[in-house]
Parts: sequence; structure tokens; C-alpha cells
Amino acid sequence: MQKTVSLQEIYAPIERHLEAVPPAILEILSSPNELAHDVTRYFFSALGKLLRPALTFLGAGIKGDSLEISARLVKLGSAFEIFHAATLIHDDIIDSAYLRRNIPTVNVKWGPEVAVLVGDYLHNHAIEAIFQNGNEKIFSLFLQTAGRVCDGEIHELKEKDNYGLTEAEYFEIIDKKTAVLLACNAAAGAMLAGSSPEEAEALKRYGHAFGKAFQIVDDCLDFTGEQHEFGKTLGADCAAGVLTLPLIRLTQLVDEKKKSETVKIFSALELGGCAGNFGGKSEMSTSKFQTLLSMIREYGTIEYSMERAREFCDQARLELSVFKQSPARRSLELLLDYVLERGR
Amino acid sequence: MQKTVSLQEIYAPIERHLEAVPPAILEILSSPNELAHDVTRYFFSALGKLLRPALTFLGAGIKGDSLEISARLVKLGSAFEIFHAATLIHDDIIDSAYLRRNIPTVNVKWGPEVAVLVGDYLHNHAIEAIFQNGNEKIFSLFLQTAGRVCDGEIHELKEKDNYGLTEAEYFEIIDKKTAVLLACNAAAGAMLAGSSPEEAEALKRYGHAFGKAFQIVDDCLDFTGEQHEFGKTLGADCAAGVLTLPLIRLTQLVDEKKKSETVKIFSALELGGCAGNFGGKSEMSTSKFQTLLSMIREYGTIEYSMERAREFCDQARLELSVFKQSPARRSLELLLDYVLERGR
Repeated sequence: MQKTVSLQEIYAPIERHLEAVPPAILEILSSPNELAHDVTRYFFSALGKLLRPALTFLGAGIKGDSLEISARLVKLGSAFEIFHAATLIHDDIIDSAYLRRNIPTVNVKWGPEVAVLVGDYLHNHAIEAIFQNGNEKIFSLFLQTAGRVCDGEIHELKEKDNYGLTEAEYFEIIDKKTAVLLACNAAAGAMLAGSSPEEAEALKRYGHAFGKAFQIVDDCLDFTGEQHEFGKTLGADCAAGVLTLPLIRLTQLVDEKKKSETVKIFSALELGGCAGNFGGKSEMSTSKFQTLLSMIREYGTIEYSMERAREFCDQARLELSVFKQSPARRSLELLLDYVLERGR
Repeated sequence: MQKTVSLQEIYAPIERHLEAVPPAILEILSSPNELAHDVTRYFFSALGKLLRPALTFLGAGIKGDSLEISARLVKLGSAFEIFHAATLIHDDIIDSAYLRRNIPTVNVKWGPEVAVLVGDYLHNHAIEAIFQNGNEKIFSLFLQTAGRVCDGEIHELKEKDNYGLTEAEYFEIIDKKTAVLLACNAAAGAMLAGSSPEEAEALKRYGHAFGKAFQIVDDCLDFTGEQHEFGKTLGADCAAGVLTLPLIRLTQLVDEKKKSETVKIFSALELGGCAGNFGGKSEMSTSKFQTLLSMIREYGTIEYSMERAREFCDQARLELSVFKQSPARRSLELLLDYVLERGR
């Protein structure tokens, strides 16, 4: 699909801030501990979209025409990215994921022992950096957020293989596991820049709506993405027994007979591994995954899911109307277009 | 062995504080998240020695004749115990341990996915409770401590199967993974009770020395303990490839031929699982473990290790001399006798 908006364009007003993030991450994580050093260097050798720092900087920039680069702001955004990395490394153990950002996961490269401890290591360093950054309200918001992210992940784990999962429960899970951190990032940036509590709250609501849209699209890409562009193993959710919106919608639409077929295919995928090519199980799994994809196409549940994502983006857009026009506001608006078009 | 001092006797001056810990733990961890609720209830159904809260309370009590019970102190000690639990739950994934406090580990009962996330859940709640407790210096000390504990665990993991590990490196690892938290506990209790920085530092040094003694004895018990009393699977360190002092000393004493035999037995134990009875591998492993035990007995390396533990206890005792006589000081002294005699 031809994209109308690029991340580079969206990030233009905060380009210098984002360039300062990778070295700031390595500085926060600098350690005489060789193994921790090696693993963190490896993980951050493939940077993601840096969405958490970007939202932090845009949240800080939304008040004015130009945003001064400040060490505190860069450190805050970088610490958020480190916290996010900690959750990803632990997630990849739980989902037995093979690829992350197109390179093997820490779990695959070093084993679950290292992944558990390095996740803890990043978690600790992120918390310490945010605490040292010296804004108690931001720190308090962050701690609350970290608790809810973990709560969301446990909730998702509990609902694995629950074929009766409702859309409302799904939205609650993705709000906790994904959106709450993005909401915290945008609000924290605004708080550090001296915005009013009302402005910070508006950005928080923006983050919640944007985050849910982002996760819905992510869950669609698990079915329909181009693996190389997506950077993760396709079908990973199915293989991990995690039901996402396209599948939840499918189970609502089909009759009992087809539902039980769907459940059977889903269970087989879970046993057989991901659609991505690893292990000897891929051939059988690929064909099952294709069957599931055909049903999803037949019932248009990707389109349905994308429509829900679009609604959340509309909600998010409304939240921005209280702010005056600025490059940062424009970028936050463009991010909503980007998220609906993205392939990775 | 006839014990001259019981934990009950040592804990007498802080009995009411310790009784308040289990309900305080459950209150800090109360959650609408069913799975988190179930797992934490299960884990804390078997309480350990509550050494971290005890040191916190004794650190607070060392200034005066009697210690007033305060909600803040109880919450602090309870949060330290929760943090400790988080590290144990993650450790048990790494070591594939079967038993903890005589009940199956979370890893065995619910699987590593749940163990990873519930460990994170406890970690988050502990941090939040200590932050909310409102003493910034204590919180800062705790964050630094949490980072070092994790650093120690990664260090230990890195040195697995390193048959050239020196005593100095071993002492560094156990200082970080075990002693630093006990030092933080005692110092934090003192800080909350308004002790001087010098007094808090003396208690910190007590904790470092006591903690190393405690871990050395723990590592000896992995070889010589009574499994039921110890509450953990014997031989778990060997099975996990972790070299501890009795074995490090053995590799120093034996000639090259015997050293290579030792390494072979150790490697076989690692492949074969723990000495404790689980899986079909226990018979072979038990006999290998007995061979290793015979060598350890022949070369007296348990006695050697206990002598090192005794030296650390002597160091710890010296640190207490700056405090006036009090029930809390007496208990901290008795703990040093207890640690050398304990069977669990």
C-alpha cells in the first residue's frame, strides 16, 4: 500500500531529541557487568520505532512552537524505551517468539535464564533513571503505569485459549498491556515541560486511544503482515494461544460448527509453532495458518478490526483539539494516520 | 546438632512486628487480577524465615530499649520481603528448582510464563510500596540495592560451569546477590527510626558480613542439608551448574587428575538433574552426588567453608560494638550464632 505519511516526516520536529536517545540508552545501561553489557548492546542494535520517547517529546513539545532539547527530557524518553524493552524481552520468553525487529530474540540467542535476568536489569535501570530525573509526580505516574502493564500481561496470559473472550475484555487487556504506557509517555513529557494537569490528562487520553489503535493494527499484522517488514514472526499470537480481535470477531460471526473448526485449527497452530519458518513443524503449521487466514478474509474480520482502530484514532484526534496548532500537535495527528497504514 | 539458639528466641523483641507482616504483604499485593492473586497467595502460604523484615525491624530497634510498632515500619519490612520473593521466583526459573519452602516452585506449578510475570508483578508492587512509604533516602538506597542484586544474579549466571572461579569472585557474587539486600534492610530500618548516617553504615556493614555468612551456609546446606528441613531440593546448585565455596575449595585442593574427575561428575549432575527425587534421572544423579559428597568430606571443604562463614560472623559482630546494649542488639548477635547452626 502506498503510504501517505512517513515516520521520518512525523518525527521531524523532534529529530534531534530522538537522535540523542540511542547514546542516552547506552549511558543509562553502562555497566561493568559483561553479560548485561553484551545483551543490551545486542538488543538495542536493532532499534524499533522509538514510539515511547517520541510520544514523550511530542507531549513536551505540544505547548510551544519549538522544543528546546534538554538532557532531562532525553533521559526520560530513553528510560521509557528501556522499560518498554524490558517488557518485550520478558514477553518474548512467554510467547517463545523467534524474531524481534528482524533479529533473533534474547530468549532464542541466550536462553530464558538470561532473558529473565536481563529483563529485570533493564527494568531496574529504567526505574532508577526515571527516579533520578527528579519529578515525583512523573515517577509516581510511571510506577502506577508499570504495575498496570504487568497486570495486563498477566491478564492476557490468563485468557490464553479462552475462545469465549469478549471484545470488551480484549480492549481492557490491550489498554493495560500497551496503551497505558503510551499514555504515560505523552503525559509525562507534558508534565516535564510544565503543562497543566488538564493538558496532561488530555494527552493521557490521547495515548490510551492511540495505544489501543496501535495494538489492534499490530494484532492484524500478526495475520496479514509481510514478515520482513513487520520484523516479528507472523502467527506468533496464534502459536502462543493469544486470541486477538480478528479471531475474536471470527468466533462471533461463524456458526457453532465452523467455530469448533476454528478452535481446532487454532489449537493445532499453538502446538505446531508459528507460521514463520523455524523448527520442522512449519509446513503443517503454514497450511493451517492459511486456512485460518482464508476464514478471516471470508468474514472480513481484519476490515472490522481496522474499523475499530480507526474509531480509536478518531477519539485520539478529538483530544488534541484543546491544543493550539504546533509542529508537535501536527505530528501527533499524523501519527494517527500512520498507525492505520503501517506495515511494521 | 543440638541448637543453642532458636529463631523464635531471636525474634522475641520484634514478634508483634513480624506477626503483622503476612497480612501487610497480602494487603500490598491485593489485586483484582485473579491469577496474580492466586499465585501470590500460594507463594506466601509457605513463609520463609522473614529474615528481611526481621533485619529491618532490628535495625530500627537498635537505638532504644523498646520498639514501637508503626505501620510504616511494617510496610517497609513487608515490601522488602515481597521484593525478595520476586527474586526467588525468577531464580527458580533460572535454576529449574523444584522445591521452595517445601512446596513446588511457582515455575513448576504454573510454568515459566506465569513465574516471569508474577515475579515482575511482585517486583513492581514492592517498589511502589517502598516509594509510597515516603523516605527518599531509603527509596534511593533500595533502588541501588535492587540493581546490584540483579547484577549479582547475572554475574552468577555468567560464571556457571566456570571451574576456574576464584574465592574472591565467589564472595563478590554472594555479596551482590544476597548480602546487599540484607545490608539495605538493616540500614533502612535504622534510617526510618532516625539513626545517624554512621549508625546506618555500621548496620549496612553488619548486613554485608552477615549476608555472606548466611549464603555460604546456604551453599553448604545444598550439599549436606536434610532436604525436608532445608525446604529446597538438595544438589540444586550442582544441577544448575553453579559452583559454590565447598566445590571451589575442592578444585583448589585436588590434583589435576582428580580435578578433571570432579568436573566430569559435576557436569553429569548438571545434565542429570538435582539430587532430590524428581524425574527418572534421580538414581544415577544420586550416586554421582554421593561421590561428589565423599570427595568434599575427604578434603574437609565444608569445614573450610564454615570457617569462612564464621569469620564473616566475627566481622559482623564487631560492627555491633558501637551500639549500646539492647534487646535488638542482642538479637542481631544471636542471629550470627543461629546462621552458623541452622539446618534450613
